[in-house]
Amino acid sequence: MKQTLENRTYDELTQGDKATVSHVVTERDLILFAEVSGDVNPVHLDEAFAAATAFKGRIAHGMFSGALISAAIACELPGPGTIYIGQEMSFMRPVRLDDEIRIELEVLEKLPRNRVRIATRVFNQDGKQVVDGTATVMAPTEKVSVPRPQLPSITLG
Amino acid sequence: MKQTLENRTYDELTQGDKATVSHVVTERDLILFAEVSGDVNPVHLDEAFAAATAFKGRIAHGMFSGALISAAIACELPGPGTIYIGQEMSFMRPVRLDDEIRIELEVLEKLPRNRVRIATRVFNQDGKQVVDGTATVMAPTEKVSVPRPQLPSITLG
Repeated sequence: MKQTLENRTYDELTQGDKATVSHVVTERDLILFAEVSGDVNPVHLDEAFAAATAFKGRIAHGMFSGALISAAIACELPGPGTIYIGQEMSFMRPVRLDDEIRIELEVLEKLPRNRVRIATRVFNQDGKQVVDGTATVMAPTEKVSVPRPQLPSITLG
Repeated sequence: MKQTLENRTYDELTQGDKATVSHVVTERDLILFAEVSGDVNPVHLDEAFAAATAFKGRIAHGMFSGALISAAIACELPGPGTIYIGQEMSFMRPVRLDDEIRIELEVLEKLPRNRVRIATRVFNQDGKQVVDGTATVMAPTEKVSVPRPQLPSITLG
């Protein structure tokens, strides 16, 4: 994990710029996302319940992919100092427990007033797209490089 | 907090149906959202850093509002059994630490094949709108009433 968060300013960004982040979905993710969102639906938490649904097993919250997309924007492209203006997302396929998903960002278009449109696509380990979407952000104008803040330890039990 | 999650089926839903959820944004929320998303930007976590930005203090992650919206859809309207198809969001104003925000859902339109469009609006304690948006979901066709799952205790420290 990078110990410094560094941005790409509006001037540095070019159409076609990309960033990729990979993440393996763990039970800890599902529990923490249930806690912080309040979405405790058993399809995310209870294997026996989830096995009896159309999904045939536990799936991640759709907006967990949204959270990973937003983090990739905030930490990678454009990175610190970015102001999030909008996000649209289509949830195309379920993300399952233990899936390794890949969040791919791509600069689609630079707009006036430091606005940038970024494609936000998520794929699973089979190469199937699970989320499609577009973010609109105000890119930073000043170069920022900050040490990655340390979070307090978080214990489940 | 309701101990049972109960849904409203597609047939039960009517244009104009509403649900509201309120939430006070705590430091614990910001830390847990940073952990689960990976977005550790200091504007969310470091008061001294955030005070020196245009925001003049710590703000919640934009997608934290998205997480609360998704939970309101999943737990309240339409509730358990809903399949999330899409979400668009505009982040209009920052949400600050200690803000009490209100997530308001309203059924805009019933579409064929059990699809429903739902307005997803968030307001702060001053009545200012902080998020605007629309969710598209596949509403459940079967009545579901399930006990609220208990999460393991989560300790920060």
